[in-house]
Order: sequence, then structure tokens, then C-alpha cells
Amino acid sequence: ELVGGVHPVKDLDHARHWLDLVSRRARGGIAIRRRAVVVGGGYIGVEMAEAMVQRGFSTTLLTRSAVMSSLDSDMSERVRETVQAGGVDVITNTTIADIDIDSVDGHVRSVTGSNGQVYPTDVVVLGLGVHPATELGVAAGLPIGERGGYLPNERQEVAEGVWAAGDCCEVIDRIRGKYVLAPLGTHANKQGRICGYNTVGGSHEFPGVLGTAITRFVSAGTHVEVARTGLGSREATEAGYDVESLVTVGGTASGYMPERSPIATKIIADRRTRRLLGVQIVGGAQSAKRIDTAAAVLWGEMSVDDLAAMDLSYAPPFATVWEAIQLAARRLSDRM
Amino acid sequence: ELVGGVHPVKDLDHARHWLDLVSRRARGGIAIRRRAVVVGGGYIGVEMAEAMVQRGFSTTLLTRSAVMSSLDSDMSERVRETVQAGGVDVITNTTIADIDIDSVDGHVRSVTGSNGQVYPTDVVVLGLGVHPATELGVAAGLPIGERGGYLPNERQEVAEGVWAAGDCCEVIDRIRGKYVLAPLGTHANKQGRICGYNTVGGSHEFPGVLGTAITRFVSAGTHVEVARTGLGSREATEAGYDVESLVTVGGTASGYMPERSPIATKIIADRRTRRLLGVQIVGGAQSAKRIDTAAAVLWGEMSVDDLAAMDLSYAPPFATVWEAIQLAARRLSDRM
Repeated sequence: ELVGGVHPVKDLDHARHWLDLVSRRARGGIAIRRRAVVVGGGYIGVEMAEAMVQRGFSTTLLTRSAVMSSLDSDMSERVRETVQAGGVDVITNTTIADIDIDSVDGHVRSVTGSNGQVYPTDVVVLGLGVHPATELGVAAGLPIGERGGYLPNERQEVAEGVWAAGDCCEVIDRIRGKYVLAPLGTHANKQGRICGYNTVGGSHEFPGVLGTAITRFVSAGTHVEVARTGLGSREATEAGYDVESLVTVGGTASGYMPERSPIATKIIADRRTRRLLGVQIVGGAQSAKRIDTAAAVLWGEMSVDDLAAMDLSYAPPFATVWEAIQLAARRLSDRM
Repeated sequence: ELVGGVHPVKDLDHARHWLDLVSRRARGGIAIRRRAVVVGGGYIGVEMAEAMVQRGFSTTLLTRSAVMSSLDSDMSERVRETVQAGGVDVITNTTIADIDIDSVDGHVRSVTGSNGQVYPTDVVVLGLGVHPATELGVAAGLPIGERGGYLPNERQEVAEGVWAAGDCCEVIDRIRGKYVLAPLGTHANKQGRICGYNTVGGSHEFPGVLGTAITRFVSAGTHVEVARTGLGSREATEAGYDVESLVTVGGTASGYMPERSPIATKIIADRRTRRLLGVQIVGGAQSAKRIDTAAAVLWGEMSVDDLAAMDLSYAPPFATVWEAIQLAARRLSDRM
């Protein structure tokens, strides 16, 4: 708790604090009115908004750009619509101008947005992202990257005999061949293992990342899943690719199956080489984990035609005859 | 209906007939006792057993080898156990010795297995596989493959100006580079499209198959999903690979998530080249569709190390930090 009612979300202690808070019905004899403002539209922000709305908080999510801004804006807009439909008041392109704290009890009263609006609230969640904790290395004179992280080589060595793993490191984006920040448990876990091997004489290498990520938002009557891998349209264009992209809406199962849910797939490819550059998914239940298939295609530096042609699984409860992401790839392939 | 109560499962008319049959409570004034014998342990057999048991039929499944024999025997045994637990009496390694037909009403009374057992029944389902319907081509003198199908080239042409697509064709297995029979809607659909292009002057090519397949069996309290891609251990050994394989049991979601279900993954690889050759999955809800990730790895001719290292998606409701199929690949990679 930074000040009364204003909470960051960074570690397990914060999570325990939150659980305690949302379970309480009163604070010092005063009933909690159960209004929350979540600041930040990334994975943590969306997941905290879900947690608050599921526990009956009237919830507002403020984000300086878009919800899940690591997606292209058209896909991000699909997420915003469903999160909004799930009961969260989503305010985009808005930062916090002020947090009003009660001078008597020191507790938050409201948040004022850069849009001039005042959002009365009982608690504020700050899900504003993370920065590499590299103070130790900076003090030791180790080189630090543009994004504030250590710059390990393939063996996770940041200097002769000095190893690093996890969120304090920048990682190599395999597609662009440059350092990026991708603080995720999957990379940290793989890197830790590699450090373990290498510090005792091994020669394991971390092969880089694709930028794969997944989340969901579930609220009464709403279930949206979100995933992405590879480059977004803007990232791909900035990297010099001749970007072609297309969003295709399909289904997760055959049309006559009760478990069918919609799945919007955006395919991003390079017109010159036909190489697949990125895939984004926004859909219902059972949609998002398909991103792994796209990740494997990116890992193998395969083309959009490969994705369209490959032998993926089909049975009515699991897919359409043209698997949704494959149909999306085929449609883009056809027009390239 | 071949004779009273004995039904094949080949087309939509058969399916309609079955729906009618299982909905009826009586036949000519006599209550149907609702006992079924399903002959065949493949996809159709297992799915029909599911349909029968869900509709209250006391169901016996007879199969000449194993349940889902396109899996390795250890994985097949996992399927048998769960199908049995789901209420189907599964009899393996047994063919039909006799079908006893009532001489008065012409209706089936029982099935006698090659094991000498008699299985009294009211209906018999024959899910015995399909054969290519190539009579027309045989009459025309077209070449026919070892498995009875047409042998199209990459353009789906079986002779000058003669095109074929679908279950009447053999297809090239990409890994072994030889014709196999893989009658599936996914291939038929892709081939039909290619024929359409090529008959009007196009030059589209069908790139072959991996042998990807998926199914599930759901009954009261039981939900098992099954998928495979690539070569099984025996196929791979016969193809000359130095086969190494391992089954790893993991989870579909983080341990603290209520939606977590078990997933057994068998990884099959070549020790000499470390190339991934095949993957098989038997698990609970949300397990089987992961086979597509493995299929993409096979399509790109990547290694078991690639599968272990690649950037797949993780969030607690969707996976463990080491995605289950990736953990399985890593464990095999470690011992190779």
C-alpha cells in the first residue's frame, strides 16, 4: 500500500494483500463501497480488473494507450469491447493526472484522469509494468541495454564469470535479431536452467524469444481469450518488412458443436519473402492456446503458405475442417 | 442396416439411421433392451461407443488389436483404461467369429468373439475403416497403390488430364516420403481446392501429410482426449530411424488452477539427427489440440531440442511454465 487504498501489483505479498482487501467488507467500521480503479491495460491490469469485477467491485480500467497494447489496434479494440461487455468501464488513451487522498484518514478518494474526468474510488490498483532490477550490476559497472536490462550473450553470461537470468535481462528477439524486454516466467525458467548448466562448465544456449503471450478475461457471461506471438504490424514495418495482414473470424469447433466459440485471427506476413511474422488471436473459450502453433511456425521461420498447408488436427469438437488459424493464413496467402 | 440391427457407419444416412435407432424405445412393440456391440477400435468405433453409452446403451467395444491402434501400445492402453472407466466394456485383440441372427425376426441376437465369448446385443455397430472407392479408375486402367488408392502426383493428377482428391487417393507421408492412406476431411478439402485450381491451369501442389489426428471420448465423469501426429515408434523404427521415446505426464494448466487436467505426452525422436518424428497425447480436457504445435514442428523438420526451447505461451489457466509437450520434449532431449 503506497498510500491508503493505492496498491501496486508486483509480488506475492501484494497478491495476499489484495486477497485480504477484496474479502473485507469494512475498513475501520466504515463499509467498503467496493469501487476500484485499475491503472494499466496490460496483462496485470486486465487480470486485476477481472478479479475486482468478479468480486463485485464497480471497476474502472484506465490505460494510457489501449487495452493489451501489445496487440495491433484492431485486435486490441476487440479485447476492449469484450472487457467492457464484461462489466469493466474501460478508459483508453488516458493517464492519471491526480490521485485525491483524504486528508483526515489518508485514504484514496478518487483518481483524476488526463481527460479531466474524476473517478471516485475506494482502491486503486497500479499495474504499470516492470523495470529490470539492475542496481547491483550498474554499481559494478556492467553494461546495461537501452531498455534497462542486462545484455547476456547466448550463454546468459553478462561479463566474464557473471551470469544473469530472468526479468533483469533483455532477450534477443529471434525475428528482428535485437535485444528486447520480455519479462516472463517461461524465459526466466529456461534461462535459469541454462545458467545452472553453464556455471558448472556446460555450454547451453538460450535461443531467444518470439514475444509469445496469452491471457484471458472471464466475467459473468463473458469469456475472452487473447494471445499473440511474433511481431505486430507496426513492429514488423519498423523492422523493414513489407507487411501484409488480415483478420479472419472463424470458429473453434464445427458449426454444429455446442462448444463452438468465435476466434478472430490476425496474420501478419512479409510480402517479399512470404515469411510469417506474427499472429494475434482474440476469441472465446479454447481459442488462444492455438497461438503455440503459430509460434512453432515462427520458430522454424516458415511461410504463411506453410501455415496454410500444414497437417493440423481436425475433429468436430476441436476445430473446423480448415483450422481457424490455418484458414486465416490461407486467406492472407491468397491475396499476397 | 446389413441385417436386422447390424449397421455400418459410413455416411450421413447411416448417422441419421443411428440417431433414429438410439432415440427409439421400442421396435415393433418390443422394448429395445439397449445393448450395443461396437466393432472396431478406431476413431469411429470409439466415437460410436461414446454415443451409445451416453444414450444409456450397455456397450461393448470389440477391436481386433487395440483401442486407437494408431497410437503406440502404451498410449493406446491409457485410452482403453479411460474408455473402460467411462462405462464401455472394451475387448481387445478380438475379432468377430459369428453374428447370431434370430431366424424368426431376422434381428441380431448376439456377437461371438474370436475369444469364444458370446456378447448378447440388440444392435451392432461396424466401424471397420474405409477403403478407397476406385472401381471407376480400376476399370479405366489407372494405376492403383498398395493400399488400394489412386496415386496422385503433387498436383493431384493421377493421369494426363485426370484428377483425384479425397479418400480415394493415397497421400505422401512427408516424413517417410512414401504413399500412405489417410482418409480425412482436412486432406480431402485441401486437395479439392488444389484440383480446382489446377484443372483450370493452375499449378498448386499438395505438400503431403503428417498423420495428424484427434478425437475424444466423453461419458459421465470421464473426459479423455487423444491426438497423434507423425510416426509412431514402430513406424519410425521400420523407416530406419534410431528411435528414442519417452512418455511424460504433466498438466494442462498451473497446479492451482481448477481447470488443470492431466496430459500424457509421448515424444518420439531420432537419436542420430535429434529430429522430432512423432508426438502422441492422451489427456483430459484442453489437452489434445496441443498436437498442432507438434505438427508444426514436424512440418518444419525441426528437432526435439527446438520443441523444448521454443517460445510457447504461458499463463496459469492455459499451461504450466514449461508447457506440457515442451517439458516432455526437454526430458527426452536430456537423455538423448
